[in-house]
Amino acid sequence: MRLPIGLLVALQPLFFRNVLAIWPAPRNISSGEQTLLLSPEFSIVSDLPSTPQDLEDAVARTQARLFADGLGRLVVGRGANDSVAFSSAESLCTLRLALTSSSAAKSIADEAVVPFEVRNESYALMVPANGSEATLTAPTTLGLLRGLTTFEQLWYTYSEQVYAVNMPLVVHDSPAYPHRGFGLDSARNFFPVPDIKRTLDAMSWVKLNALYWHVVDSQSFPLEVSAFPELSQQGAYSAMQVYSEADVQDIISYAAARGIDVVLELDTPGHETAIGLSHPEHVACYLSTPWADFASEPPAGQLRLATPATVNFTVALVASVSAKFRSALFSTGGDEVNANCYTQDTQTQADLAQSGLSFDEALNEFLLATHAVIRAQGKTPIVKEDMILNHNTTLPNTTIAVVWISSQDAKNVTERGYRVIHQPSDYFYLDCGGGGWVGDDILGNSWCDPFKTWQRIYSFDPLANLTAEEASLVIGGQIPIWSEQSGPENLDPIVWPRAASAAEVFWSGGYSNGAALNVTDALPRLHDMRFRMVQRGIKAIPLQPEWCALRPNACDLNS
Amino acid sequence: MRLPIGLLVALQPLFFRNVLAIWPAPRNISSGEQTLLLSPEFSIVSDLPSTPQDLEDAVARTQARLFADGLGRLVVGRGANDSVAFSSAESLCTLRLALTSSSAAKSIADEAVVPFEVRNESYALMVPANGSEATLTAPTTLGLLRGLTTFEQLWYTYSEQVYAVNMPLVVHDSPAYPHRGFGLDSARNFFPVPDIKRTLDAMSWVKLNALYWHVVDSQSFPLEVSAFPELSQQGAYSAMQVYSEADVQDIISYAAARGIDVVLELDTPGHETAIGLSHPEHVACYLSTPWADFASEPPAGQLRLATPATVNFTVALVASVSAKFRSALFSTGGDEVNANCYTQDTQTQADLAQSGLSFDEALNEFLLATHAVIRAQGKTPIVKEDMILNHNTTLPNTTIAVVWISSQDAKNVTERGYRVIHQPSDYFYLDCGGGGWVGDDILGNSWCDPFKTWQRIYSFDPLANLTAEEASLVIGGQIPIWSEQSGPENLDPIVWPRAASAAEVFWSGGYSNGAALNVTDALPRLHDMRFRMVQRGIKAIPLQPEWCALRPNACDLNS
Repeated sequence: MRLPIGLLVALQPLFFRNVLAIWPAPRNISSGEQTLLLSPEFSIVSDLPSTPQDLEDAVARTQARLFADGLGRLVVGRGANDSVAFSSAESLCTLRLALTSSSAAKSIADEAVVPFEVRNESYALMVPANGSEATLTAPTTLGLLRGLTTFEQLWYTYSEQVYAVNMPLVVHDSPAYPHRGFGLDSARNFFPVPDIKRTLDAMSWVKLNALYWHVVDSQSFPLEVSAFPELSQQGAYSAMQVYSEADVQDIISYAAARGIDVVLELDTPGHETAIGLSHPEHVACYLSTPWADFASEPPAGQLRLATPATVNFTVALVASVSAKFRSALFSTGGDEVNANCYTQDTQTQADLAQSGLSFDEALNEFLLATHAVIRAQGKTPIVKEDMILNHNTTLPNTTIAVVWISSQDAKNVTERGYRVIHQPSDYFYLDCGGGGWVGDDILGNSWCDPFKTWQRIYSFDPLANLTAEEASLVIGGQIPIWSEQSGPENLDPIVWPRAASAAEVFWSGGYSNGAALNVTDALPRLHDMRFRMVQRGIKAIPLQPEWCALRPNACDLNS
Repeated sequence: MRLPIGLLVALQPLFFRNVLAIWPAPRNISSGEQTLLLSPEFSIVSDLPSTPQDLEDAVARTQARLFADGLGRLVVGRGANDSVAFSSAESLCTLRLALTSSSAAKSIADEAVVPFEVRNESYALMVPANGSEATLTAPTTLGLLRGLTTFEQLWYTYSEQVYAVNMPLVVHDSPAYPHRGFGLDSARNFFPVPDIKRTLDAMSWVKLNALYWHVVDSQSFPLEVSAFPELSQQGAYSAMQVYSEADVQDIISYAAARGIDVVLELDTPGHETAIGLSHPEHVACYLSTPWADFASEPPAGQLRLATPATVNFTVALVASVSAKFRSALFSTGGDEVNANCYTQDTQTQADLAQSGLSFDEALNEFLLATHAVIRAQGKTPIVKEDMILNHNTTLPNTTIAVVWISSQDAKNVTERGYRVIHQPSDYFYLDCGGGGWVGDDILGNSWCDPFKTWQRIYSFDPLANLTAEEASLVIGGQIPIWSEQSGPENLDPIVWPRAASAAEVFWSGGYSNGAALNVTDALPRLHDMRFRMVQRGIKAIPLQPEWCALRPNACDLNS
């Protein structure tokens, strides 16, 4: 630390007179109350012996945003009162980047896809108020990216002047949980590549680091798989609604350069009806009706997990798809397997009789076979909690489980020794509260009513009810949008700023400077993040009337 | 009718093999099963002796949309199977417009703002399948506009060919209710003029004919009033967030040319805190806290209705604003008057003592005074139901009441002889279900939970529980968005296609060809309208996975 601590005001409570609107809240932060101008000649310089191209690109994006954001501070007058301090304020001309590790710098992209167990996103940021150089140091280029993201959030614009109000500033920061994701379902309705890239941008602004991509489902198969081209040719909604292998590589690269790992979910054996359009031989209860007897939503159809040819097909498909992704994680899903579908399927019953296996035994063999090829690629398989809690499987404890049915289930899963990604529908499902989408159902509400407000999301405790040992198995969480009633039209407003709320939960772990965070202090900062997102072209919804956004906490329940 | 009825297939049920996706459903319609191509030389010709400019503009818009919509029909293959009929199909070259009235044609704009009692939106549309001229006739240019809107919805595009599949077609149509509105709150958060114009376009596509504009509220006063320029100068969120008088005229003209009347609501005496920024002398309990003791939402403040100077100010304000609008209607609102605000206000208590009036007597005088200037301008005043049901007022029966608290209240209001506009929160509030927006409220849900689905909206019966006499007092309905959690970012997705559901309720009255409409038959048509809106640049949300949209009723509850 170059600044003596005596110059800084310890923040207790964290966010006082001037809202220090860093989102997610840093783990450790000290700041003052001085105004600092950003010099028109401001530049970001690198002390790295060799700066990776994607770090150079990230620096360029930050440099541009500092002057392009044009965010008026969220106070009455939008900064007019701040301007009185401009004449006596110093100007910052330089932010200097340095790595604390002596090894050669790897690219951000390479750092973003290393296994979460060894990924390093920590950074330290120091901004003096006296105009001398600011410094950003980190052990990895990924950490530098996170620090740049924090640095971008310090600045407001009033009358062409870019300035900060909470200087000097010292941040020592690193994530509480290594896996912090947003889940996208691109199968119920399709999202063009530009929508995904825009979402990746916004994810990176709040330090989310995983796109959990539920790419295909029963309704459509929009993923090009070169080994099985018929899958998307027959299974996509149209030729225009396919992610080509080039698109996928483009998305992976775009994400990685922004510190985001793309984790694919190929949900099996359920949620795969669309495979039946090209391979009906692999699908049990294909389009059977009434659909509600065979599936959680239309159309019915599940992979014939007891049929050797289908197991082989699925293994080959998983191997082929997984090999195209850089991530050290790959999910085979496994939610909502419908027993009746298999009971009614003559082929499955014959195959079970032939093998002498029970249904769960056959499911277990199917799972182990698909996971074997994932592990053979050096990756860790992920499953939905169903595969651990609802079926008698023998998955090793190195398997990761996504808890989605209820937040209560994290206890059961960790008790059994499995690592957990929190994705509970009772806190995180962004589509809840939009009403039922099934037809001919006048009074149908969402199955997971009510709407999950940002406050509800924020109130999630990743360690609730867990022992210390169980808590050690929590690797993070992710907040998904299921797209039955969503498309490019409402992607931004349904996701933002609510996904940012989850981002803070898993980055901060609920604490900053050792003090528990709370919704009351968080709201002004979230307003700020939301307004900044809007300035950057993300259609994040207003959380309150603008009157409230400009008057921190004036619209609280008891204000 | 030029087509013998023998050529037509009566529709029972209304929408059969090929979805005839006209929205809202016409009152009377017959159609066939033949394919008709739209000639590349297709043109719309007018038999009017003199065609008003705004009708010419409407014709040009229709002409452009026919070829620009590019909507693939919502079937598997998006029209590929339709193309087999192209080679044997005739081509339509002409749509001929004629007025049935011999009087000189008035502009659409003039017809749109005549009092609803005498407004005429009826039309007849005949499209032969044999390529001979189609005809559109109506008694008014406004009716011709409605017919053009219907005509636009007949056409799909496959491989550059524009075609229809339900020919021949005869429509005789007119609205069941004269007032069919969308309500916009531009005070909690601001909507730039282009957002309003885009919304007016979409409204016209579903034959909504009233923009009920709740322009100002306690949070901001974005309306320029030349007689009181200080109101917006001090009361708007910023100088950029003001509707100038030129903007207002622009919006009125744009709306009227699309058959839409702009009805202003100046909500009094509550919901006017923002006036206090320039005229604190007129506002009781101005910014009093805790706000919940003084107002339904922050910030607190109501007009000092018992103070003569404030009455005079309000009368002058209403007169000044009302005079700027062409509509024959003007609303003084009147919802959620908080008694404690006045009880605690020394000035109000002194004025009541001085006059010897009770609170309700003073409120009544305040109301009658503001309504007198509205009536003096030849207009009919509208109030919220509170002013009739919750206060002892002497409003004449010519006053119109907006029922918003509960759909049950329409009975009480019509029993007392008042005309009613349905706007019930339990069916129509588009913002319900988005969670509570008040701060420091982790578990707060919407006060009007749950989300109002299109099905719920569609199930509204405008005449429920009413006697024939009471029913005669229902002039229509309107579906509002309150903008505490809305802004330009989510305007389209929160409004569309749900507002279209209300549009059909009040255009059709729930019947087509004398048969009751229902959600099961409506869904495929609403999908079609939603996809067409998206083609035209409205970010309407998907109602279901695309798989369902392409397979009518396959995703119904019991399919």
